[in-house]
Amino acid sequence: MKNKEIIAGFLSNGLACGIKTSNKKNDLGIIFATEPNTRIAGVFTQNKIKAAPVRWCQQNLKSGKGRGRLIVVNSGNANAATGKKGIADNALIARSAAELFGVSSNETFVCSTGKIGAKLPTQKILNGLKHHVGKLTPNGLDKFTSAIVTTDAYSKTAQAQFKIGGKIVSMTAMAKGAGMIEPNMATMLCFVLTDLNISAALLQKLLSEAVGPTLNSLTVDGDTSTNDTVLMMASGLAENTLINKRDPGYALALKTLKNVLGKIAELIALDGEGATKCMVIQVKGAKSRQDADKIARAIGNSQLVKTAMFGNDPNWGRILAAAGYSGANIEEGRIKIALDNITLFAGGRPFDKNENRASAYLKANKMIAVNVDLAIGKHEARILASDLGYEYVRINADYRT
Amino acid sequence: MKNKEIIAGFLSNGLACGIKTSNKKNDLGIIFATEPNTRIAGVFTQNKIKAAPVRWCQQNLKSGKGRGRLIVVNSGNANAATGKKGIADNALIARSAAELFGVSSNETFVCSTGKIGAKLPTQKILNGLKHHVGKLTPNGLDKFTSAIVTTDAYSKTAQAQFKIGGKIVSMTAMAKGAGMIEPNMATMLCFVLTDLNISAALLQKLLSEAVGPTLNSLTVDGDTSTNDTVLMMASGLAENTLINKRDPGYALALKTLKNVLGKIAELIALDGEGATKCMVIQVKGAKSRQDADKIARAIGNSQLVKTAMFGNDPNWGRILAAAGYSGANIEEGRIKIALDNITLFAGGRPFDKNENRASAYLKANKMIAVNVDLAIGKHEARILASDLGYEYVRINADYRT
Repeated sequence: MKNKEIIAGFLSNGLACGIKTSNKKNDLGIIFATEPNTRIAGVFTQNKIKAAPVRWCQQNLKSGKGRGRLIVVNSGNANAATGKKGIADNALIARSAAELFGVSSNETFVCSTGKIGAKLPTQKILNGLKHHVGKLTPNGLDKFTSAIVTTDAYSKTAQAQFKIGGKIVSMTAMAKGAGMIEPNMATMLCFVLTDLNISAALLQKLLSEAVGPTLNSLTVDGDTSTNDTVLMMASGLAENTLINKRDPGYALALKTLKNVLGKIAELIALDGEGATKCMVIQVKGAKSRQDADKIARAIGNSQLVKTAMFGNDPNWGRILAAAGYSGANIEEGRIKIALDNITLFAGGRPFDKNENRASAYLKANKMIAVNVDLAIGKHEARILASDLGYEYVRINADYRT
Repeated sequence: MKNKEIIAGFLSNGLACGIKTSNKKNDLGIIFATEPNTRIAGVFTQNKIKAAPVRWCQQNLKSGKGRGRLIVVNSGNANAATGKKGIADNALIARSAAELFGVSSNETFVCSTGKIGAKLPTQKILNGLKHHVGKLTPNGLDKFTSAIVTTDAYSKTAQAQFKIGGKIVSMTAMAKGAGMIEPNMATMLCFVLTDLNISAALLQKLLSEAVGPTLNSLTVDGDTSTNDTVLMMASGLAENTLINKRDPGYALALKTLKNVLGKIAELIALDGEGATKCMVIQVKGAKSRQDADKIARAIGNSQLVKTAMFGNDPNWGRILAAAGYSGANIEEGRIKIALDNITLFAGGRPFDKNENRASAYLKANKMIAVNVDLAIGKHEARILASDLGYEYVRINADYRT
C-alpha cells in the first residue's frame, strides 16, 4: 500500500499476536481516533447467523449515539457460531482494549474474520492489544491493512479528496475480502476513515447510501458471510462547516464515497478467490428495478456463466438462460446480449459472426462488460461478479485441511 | 446398460446422424409406441427461455389429449434461442418423423439437448430419421440412451416392477444430465416407459407427483436449463384393470415411480460434471415446508459447501452460514448440524472432537448425509446436490472452445 494518505485524527497499526499460527502473519489491527467527538457509522451482514463481534458493533451503534474511538480487528478467527463463550470473549476484548486506550467500551468496535466455529484464542488477542499500546502512528494503515486479510491475494485500498467551502476533505478505505462474497455484505470487512465534519446520523445515511450500488452489488460466490462489516469514522478535522443532507457538500461526499467504495468492490471482485476476471453486469430496459437486479444477480451467480468467462468463452446462451430462470419478466424476442459493444444475441437470434471478436475481447481484458438490454421497460441494475476457476476450488477445498 | 428390461409396446434405437461432428457418437434416438392408444405425460423446464422442442411438446400435450406415439431426441444441439427458424426446424422434424413412422404429428414429441443458440443441422436429422425406419427394436433402449447424452460420464437408467391385481407392471427410466442441473427441471432429459394401463390424466398426475421429491429436488450448479423435459409413456399392455387415483394400485405405481426417478436423481447428482460426491441434504424441524426447502437448497447450492465436500472438509460453519442467509427462520442456539450421525454443531457450539470422524466419513463415502435439525417446527425437506471440484471448471470452461 504505497502513497497512502494520512487521515487527520487517526492512528493505527497492525501486528502478529499469534492467531495465524501457521505463518505468523499480522493478525491484529487497531485504529484509534484521537478526537473525542469522532463519529462512526456501520453496515452489517444480513445473515441471520451473526458473529459475536457483529452483534457487539450493532449494539454499540444503537447505544453509543454514533460515537466511535477505537476499532479492533483480528483475522484468522471469525468468532462466529461460538455461542455464549464467543460473546463473552468478544466483550472481554472490547473492554480490555477500551481500558488500555482510555476510551469507553461503547465507543470500541470489534471485528473478526477467518475460521467459523473455532474457539477464539482470546488470551493471544489480549496480549497483542498490550503490544499495540504506544505503537500506533498516523501512517500505520499499511500495517493495519496487512493484519485484516485472510485469503486475499493483495491489499484493497482506495483514496479520494474533495473540497467543501475551500476545505480539503480526505477519505480512505481499506478492505479485506475474497471468498464468501455476495451482495448484501459478504465476508468482507471494510473500514473508511475521513476527516469530514458531519453528524453521526448523516454519516450513517451517507454510508448506507454509498454501500448499496458498490459493496452490496458484488458477488463472488453467492455466499453471504456471518461477519461482514463496514465501519466508517469521521474525525471532523477537515473543519468544513457541518453539512446537512441538502448541501452540495453532502452530494459531493456521497459521490466521492461511492467512487472509493466502487473501487474497493472492483478490487474484491478481481480478487474473488482465484478470479481472473471481474464481470461488470449491466442490465437495462427492465420492467422494474427488482427485475433488473434479479437478472443481474442470476447472471453474476451462475456457475456456468462464471466458468465460461474463465474459459474465455463468449457463451451468451448461458447468460440468456440465467435471465430466463431469474424469475424476472423477459421477452426472448426483444432481449439483447452484448459483451462490451459486441452483440451476441438480439431479435431472437444469435450473431455468430461476432463470436471471434467476443472471444478476443475476453482474452484481452480483466474487466468484462456484460450488457443485457431487455427492451421492455426503463429500469436498470449493475452488479460486479467474479469468474470461477480452478483456484477457487483449490482455495476453498483446502482452506481448513 | 445391461439387463435392461424390455417394456411391452415400445420399439427404439439410436444412431449417429452427424450432429456431433467431432466424435461421431450417437446423437439421434427414437422411441416408437406400437399401441395406438399409448398415453403420454410430461413435465418441463420453468425457465422463461424455452427451447423450440419444449414449446412443441407442451403444445402437443395440450392439443393431443394425452396421446403419444413417437419420441425423437437429438443431442449435440439444443435448438434453444434459435428464434423462428428454430421453431420451424423443430416442426419440420416432427412432421417428417410422424410421416415416416405413420403417426400423427401431434402424437410426435421432440427433445433436443446440447449447445444453445447454434443453428440446428436440420438436414442431418431428417436424413437420420430415414435411417431409423425399419431398424427400431424392442431391445433398442441401450442405443437410444447412448444417443441422448452430452457431457454425461455414464448412462443413467433405472427399472422396477410391481403387481396390480396379479398383473406385473414394468417401469424403466432413461436420463441424460450432468451439468446445468437445478431443482425444477435442469438440463435433463428423462424418458419413462411403462406398460401400466392408466388414463392420460392420471398418468400426468402420477408423473407430476413423482418428479417433485426426485428430479425437482436435485441441484448440481443452480442453473436451470432451457430444455429440461421429462416424458412418460404408458402402453397399457400390462393389462391391469384401469386404475383410478384412490386405488392401492395408484399408490404402488407412485411409490415405484418415485423409487425409479429417485435412483435417476442420484445417478445425475453423482455425475454432476466432475462431481465426486452426492450430498443428501435432509432439513427437519422447520417452521414451514418452504423454510425447510429454502435451507436445503441454500446448502445444496452453496459453492463454499460444495468445495468443502470436495476437499473432505467437514466445514459445518459454511452449512450454518448457508442456513443463515437462506431467508428461512432459524435459531442459532437450537440448530443441530450432523454429517450422517456425527454431530458437528449443536446447542450453539461446535463439537470439535467429532471433526476427525467426520473427515474420515467424507473420505470413505460418495453419498454424504447432511442432516440439519432446526428444532423449531415440524416441517422437513430433502434435496440431492453435487460437490464442486476441478473437473466442473474444466468441463464448463472448455465446453464450447
